[in-house]
Amino acid sequence: MSAFPPLHHLLLRPRLPLSLRPSAAVPIRRLRLLPLSSSTATQDNADEVAEPPPPVTGTKMSVIDVNPPRGTRDFPPEDMRLRNWLFQNFREVSRLLSFEEVDFPVLESEALFIRKAGEEITQQLYNFEDKGGRRVVLRPEITPSLARLVIKQGKSVSFPLRWFAIGQCWRYERMTRGRRREHYQWNMDIIGVSKVRAEAELIHAIVLLFERLGVTSLDVGIRVSSRKVLQAVLQMYSIPEHLFMEVCVIVDKLGKITREEVEKELMIAGVSLEAVKGIVEVLSLKSLSKLEEVLGSDGEAVADLKRLFSLAEHYGYSKWINFDASVVRGLAYYTGIVFEAFDREGKLRAICGGGRYDRLLSTFGSDDIPACGFGFGDAVIMELLKEKGLVPDLARQVEDIVFPLDVELEGPASKVVSSLRRKGRSVDLIEDKRLKWVFKHAERINASRLVLVGNSEWQRGMVRVKNLSTREEYEIKIDELC
Amino acid sequence: MSAFPPLHHLLLRPRLPLSLRPSAAVPIRRLRLLPLSSSTATQDNADEVAEPPPPVTGTKMSVIDVNPPRGTRDFPPEDMRLRNWLFQNFREVSRLLSFEEVDFPVLESEALFIRKAGEEITQQLYNFEDKGGRRVVLRPEITPSLARLVIKQGKSVSFPLRWFAIGQCWRYERMTRGRRREHYQWNMDIIGVSKVRAEAELIHAIVLLFERLGVTSLDVGIRVSSRKVLQAVLQMYSIPEHLFMEVCVIVDKLGKITREEVEKELMIAGVSLEAVKGIVEVLSLKSLSKLEEVLGSDGEAVADLKRLFSLAEHYGYSKWINFDASVVRGLAYYTGIVFEAFDREGKLRAICGGGRYDRLLSTFGSDDIPACGFGFGDAVIMELLKEKGLVPDLARQVEDIVFPLDVELEGPASKVVSSLRRKGRSVDLIEDKRLKWVFKHAERINASRLVLVGNSEWQRGMVRVKNLSTREEYEIKIDELC
Repeated sequence: MSAFPPLHHLLLRPRLPLSLRPSAAVPIRRLRLLPLSSSTATQDNADEVAEPPPPVTGTKMSVIDVNPPRGTRDFPPEDMRLRNWLFQNFREVSRLLSFEEVDFPVLESEALFIRKAGEEITQQLYNFEDKGGRRVVLRPEITPSLARLVIKQGKSVSFPLRWFAIGQCWRYERMTRGRRREHYQWNMDIIGVSKVRAEAELIHAIVLLFERLGVTSLDVGIRVSSRKVLQAVLQMYSIPEHLFMEVCVIVDKLGKITREEVEKELMIAGVSLEAVKGIVEVLSLKSLSKLEEVLGSDGEAVADLKRLFSLAEHYGYSKWINFDASVVRGLAYYTGIVFEAFDREGKLRAICGGGRYDRLLSTFGSDDIPACGFGFGDAVIMELLKEKGLVPDLARQVEDIVFPLDVELEGPASKVVSSLRRKGRSVDLIEDKRLKWVFKHAERINASRLVLVGNSEWQRGMVRVKNLSTREEYEIKIDELC
Repeated sequence: MSAFPPLHHLLLRPRLPLSLRPSAAVPIRRLRLLPLSSSTATQDNADEVAEPPPPVTGTKMSVIDVNPPRGTRDFPPEDMRLRNWLFQNFREVSRLLSFEEVDFPVLESEALFIRKAGEEITQQLYNFEDKGGRRVVLRPEITPSLARLVIKQGKSVSFPLRWFAIGQCWRYERMTRGRRREHYQWNMDIIGVSKVRAEAELIHAIVLLFERLGVTSLDVGIRVSSRKVLQAVLQMYSIPEHLFMEVCVIVDKLGKITREEVEKELMIAGVSLEAVKGIVEVLSLKSLSKLEEVLGSDGEAVADLKRLFSLAEHYGYSKWINFDASVVRGLAYYTGIVFEAFDREGKLRAICGGGRYDRLLSTFGSDDIPACGFGFGDAVIMELLKEKGLVPDLARQVEDIVFPLDVELEGPASKVVSSLRRKGRSVDLIEDKRLKWVFKHAERINASRLVLVGNSEWQRGMVRVKNLSTREEYEIKIDELC
């Protein structure tokens, strides 16, 4: 402890005019509450019908809607800290897996997403025509851009590639409660590996992420199947190959629309009633040995899945995954293993999903390059973390607050601030406030130290420091402050 | 050094069938070079006229344009490393200044950017109508979103706010060589401080950034003036206040269009010839004392500027800044101090720019809240760094490569990979390649260690490790590997 008088004594000293006068704080009039800015109404629940603007007074030009566009989010500091925390976990797992980060424009050519299989994602494109008459789109997903870049890079890259991206994705749909028009997605993709080792690596990444977030295999699981299961069934019933994508997209709706509706859609697509029954039966399988009974053991579907489950054993994440033939995923371009993570209580939508897409690049005019990947959104995982009480309490963290005790000391305070920042410390500078306000502020921003610049100390080349965790107070030479 | 045989001996051993056979690598046929994918032609120079697509062969459906939309960028890994490096510097400086990060949707309501002063930024809006008939825009700048959020947060925040954001901004203009339609911008804003201390803090951030990047005050400078200079001149000539914004926007064109054109535009706006001459004369001033002679010493313009230069002295960044009355900046909403950083050789556009905007929030229907901030783009600074040879050489950095020497060892290799990653190491897993390729790959990705999983070692519970910097080789128990 220091022998110097504690800080509250300073408040009584005559050379502290600021703290004894009414606050010299910046005169900010209280904000009028605008009808549209109610902080209790979330943007998701906001009514489509615009309310009449409030009467405009004085010289105000107009009252803007303080909400971001419908279905989109602002990130005030507390939300941004959480987003950064989640993204840092995405990045750290990507680093552990030795993936390289890439990025693409959020605005893409519409052509990249035009597919005819009837996927939800292409029916909800946030697309429009730009002023040059080009059809563009706020990307609904990242994989097509990645495939585009792989082709563009051509011979300058050496396969396999291990790429990840974190980016915002968009869709346009009639708004329903709680559905947003944008979300952020973490994508990991391995390009140039045809073996299921690639899928095993991707699932390892997902498991490592869950573990880092505190989620256990009792909370979530990862369902795995292969599109080759469906392909084998279609072959059994001699259904033409060109129907494959469409059948996958229809079958993926099981659980969202009724089984009868799915069967009807399949028959409209040209699948025989007998085949429809066969498909639905196979999709209900939950064990690999049963699948082997149905499809035989010489097909790729069974071989791939067995290999993946064997690898999972060696990685040590068997308890996280299980075979479930009903997993098909909604994207048209998957060709092999598909997987999705889900909460075991069954309350939420899929947490993430992915699979192998060995034919996507050839649909873009390149030769085939084997590839697989997954997308992991920021929305469902945060819902899950909230439910499990796993959302961290992230406070603002500032190291020092510098506070000149007199208006005339703004020069010396600048010197102190500048010197501390050059030493790498995070420094807030407060002026024109009462000392009481400064202490409250220090608590709010989790400051570790308060550096007071006072007249008599400064004349002796000193400043007064209060360590806010130990409550210790001392004077120190300016040059020695660090 | 280890007593074990060096790695090149392994290549000759019979239990390494993979390395002696033709490569078992994934059969990736070489990509055909698409006419649109030439990696030498940059997207900026690409011709507007679409070339005819190459003849489609086999089952290829179509050939997509492998370039991102005109005027936008992909970030392959090497570009992304640089972008992350730059953003990390933005973030680190923001931390030193104790700013909190925020973010907003890249898509905003058009109403937020509708201003009538004729600014370039509002004439080049990337705007369109969404499917719900709403006028939306890919934001051209971040400040209006920030102002919107401040109003929305209302009484839940405590002033002053120190907020920063890093986000992509868009514009739509006829493409000219080297001009892009998107860039990333680092914004720092202080809300709720009316004194020029806030500007002094912002300029401190800019200087700290330059210093971190290796840029000196011989390379760049920061020109400072105040909109209050122009305001005083307009008052001298009794020009009505409602012309202020428009005059500022016109005057900012000096240097971009001829002086005669600027004078003409001013006169069309309703400024008398006499006043035009007066404005142009004052704008040529480069010294504060001359300004004081012209405007007198009792006005706010001179007082603010003097205070700012005095603070700069105390912070220790005087050599970086100079008064230059010609700085006006192109945004309509600035009201006080304005500043911009420039390269002293005069080759580049402004590196960053900012100023005080005490009236922006009231134009949105809130009460006035004093505020100032700056935007710092990612484009010009990177050009400058290239010119000065200051772009860092950022290689990929992976810690371990795990390589099973036999296909049957994929299980053990999975164990090793999983265990290393759980210990926090960044691990690449390579299979089906020759050992020679693996060594080349290790060099390319800057790996520190190669972990070889071989049959005889594994049976003894060991793996072989090669430290790639020291060339040291040794065997180690699997449990002891870390």
